[in-house]
Amino acid sequence: MTHYTKGKKLRIAIDAMGGDFAPAEIVKGAIMGARELKAEIILTGIVPDIEREVAKHKVDGITYRIVEATDVIRDGQEAAYEVFKKPKNSISIAAKMVKDGEADVMVSAGNTGACMVAAMQHFGMLPGLDRPMIGGAFLGLAPRTVLLDMGAVVGAQPYHMVNFAVAGTVYVRSFMGIENPTVGLLNVGAEEGKGNELAKAAYPLLKKSGLNFIGNVEGMDIPLGKANVIVCDGFVGNIIIKFCEGIGRTATKWLDKELKDSVDSSVLKNTNDKLYKLLSPATAMGGGPMWGVGGVACVAHGAADASQIVGTMRQAKLALESDFVGKLKAELERIQGLVNQQ
Amino acid sequence: MTHYTKGKKLRIAIDAMGGDFAPAEIVKGAIMGARELKAEIILTGIVPDIEREVAKHKVDGITYRIVEATDVIRDGQEAAYEVFKKPKNSISIAAKMVKDGEADVMVSAGNTGACMVAAMQHFGMLPGLDRPMIGGAFLGLAPRTVLLDMGAVVGAQPYHMVNFAVAGTVYVRSFMGIENPTVGLLNVGAEEGKGNELAKAAYPLLKKSGLNFIGNVEGMDIPLGKANVIVCDGFVGNIIIKFCEGIGRTATKWLDKELKDSVDSSVLKNTNDKLYKLLSPATAMGGGPMWGVGGVACVAHGAADASQIVGTMRQAKLALESDFVGKLKAELERIQGLVNQQ
Repeated sequence: MTHYTKGKKLRIAIDAMGGDFAPAEIVKGAIMGARELKAEIILTGIVPDIEREVAKHKVDGITYRIVEATDVIRDGQEAAYEVFKKPKNSISIAAKMVKDGEADVMVSAGNTGACMVAAMQHFGMLPGLDRPMIGGAFLGLAPRTVLLDMGAVVGAQPYHMVNFAVAGTVYVRSFMGIENPTVGLLNVGAEEGKGNELAKAAYPLLKKSGLNFIGNVEGMDIPLGKANVIVCDGFVGNIIIKFCEGIGRTATKWLDKELKDSVDSSVLKNTNDKLYKLLSPATAMGGGPMWGVGGVACVAHGAADASQIVGTMRQAKLALESDFVGKLKAELERIQGLVNQQ
Repeated sequence: MTHYTKGKKLRIAIDAMGGDFAPAEIVKGAIMGARELKAEIILTGIVPDIEREVAKHKVDGITYRIVEATDVIRDGQEAAYEVFKKPKNSISIAAKMVKDGEADVMVSAGNTGACMVAAMQHFGMLPGLDRPMIGGAFLGLAPRTVLLDMGAVVGAQPYHMVNFAVAGTVYVRSFMGIENPTVGLLNVGAEEGKGNELAKAAYPLLKKSGLNFIGNVEGMDIPLGKANVIVCDGFVGNIIIKFCEGIGRTATKWLDKELKDSVDSSVLKNTNDKLYKLLSPATAMGGGPMWGVGGVACVAHGAADASQIVGTMRQAKLALESDFVGKLKAELERIQGLVNQQ
């Protein structure tokens, strides 16, 4: 499916209709990103809506196309199913552009479940995987640690934890340049044999995975960066990243009150902005690749603004150029001989 | 079992041997607490060790006894079983003092699993419960929110979530004076039907519990204090409180660097100390009652120092005087008619 060769102009299909601030912030970000990355952009969605937004910006020197999508997937429990019912939605059209070789990567700030389904449908799953995963270095305080899964795989099986560990290892190797990343299993105690059924069953699988497995890690080990890759069920990962976001909001508010008479207000504002970004996962990530599908699909936070769309576009470029998908595929094939999946 | 009548001198049995800094910090804290609370203290453990520590302090006006325990339970996976194998350990002796009416409450900074077993054995479980729970207002940023379970019940069943909700409700009512506490189910999304199997099955039980159930809450809702009682499996709760402890350590370290040239150093130190306490659950709690057993057993953090032992003694007094156990028992009896347990 990948028709991209290094040095060629990158073509990014962007779902212009997904996200809380679509299409305005998406189109704005796409144009900013196209300029920065010297990329071609393909905006998918309702044509007059996109044209109206494009008209607000300078597009000299920018190569862009608008491709019609007649439907828009809205948030809600049915979003993932709507992808099948409305195949001409802006997410699926973007995914299809990549599949058909008309774009190299896709970016969306739309519903995560819908993006997962569209990516699975058009890109297929990598060998041994049954569903995509979401992970990343969500915590600025621990920049060399990725956590996964963050909510794509709720109710994981033991073999999923090995998949997470493989994906995390490849990610850290590709994006952080760490050759032999350490892997930890998130648990309630350090000793083998601790934890719930999932953790107990996953431990021996990770042990024989051939990965750099260092054993169980506990909650405090995430911010302390004790392992480069920390794996857990998507239920736990999702709660942690959102908990951290809430801490970011409440802690900075507290600091604001506490220090307002002792620090220059602009210094305090600057510190709080930085701390919030270090703690607030969505802001810190901008967006990242969906892991496990046979192509590059990067998902931005639903509340993404233009600059976060640019951040997500950067991630998409990096994923493509580092051949993240190809490396992950190779590592998954290697691991299948070692770990009995299912 | 409770022989205590209000106004009478409170008798606290204290495991002098449990905790990282036992017996020194425990004995020191016990004496400080005895003075503050005008309580009698009964120190259980190795007699010469305790006597040596007592000799270091002024004990004028303090009523204290030393009761011999020939064994000390060490931390580790076998701790809970050791309680049966070595019935003359300092935790069990303290529990037995309460059972026999020679003390009103017990306090230990020893192994949590061992304390649970000793309390179950000597106090029994309240009706409808099969094991103790651990909860509390762990986050200073959300002082009117309790989270449970924090690690006593790993691999909870749906009916456990109702037990947690009942215990949390009674706790908030007794200790915070909130008449009708709101209860939230920790989950990955707000809508009913979201989440893992446990959450999906617990939701309808909570709905018909007669408690003030407000539905699902997400990770960010813990620091935002969206509900007074937030219930989750002990696996999740344990990871969250430890994660928060790690954030406390890393965030204050970051702030120290970031602001060292902009703020007076004593102001910065004071702010960071406060923030650490707001974020670090163990420090913030000091210790609290074990929930679900038929008597008051308060467990302090393993790393507790003397002042945290005093904090735990205060909690024990409060638990006894507010009749936490009696109220919890009544509420559990009420709920049994409404929710089919198991």
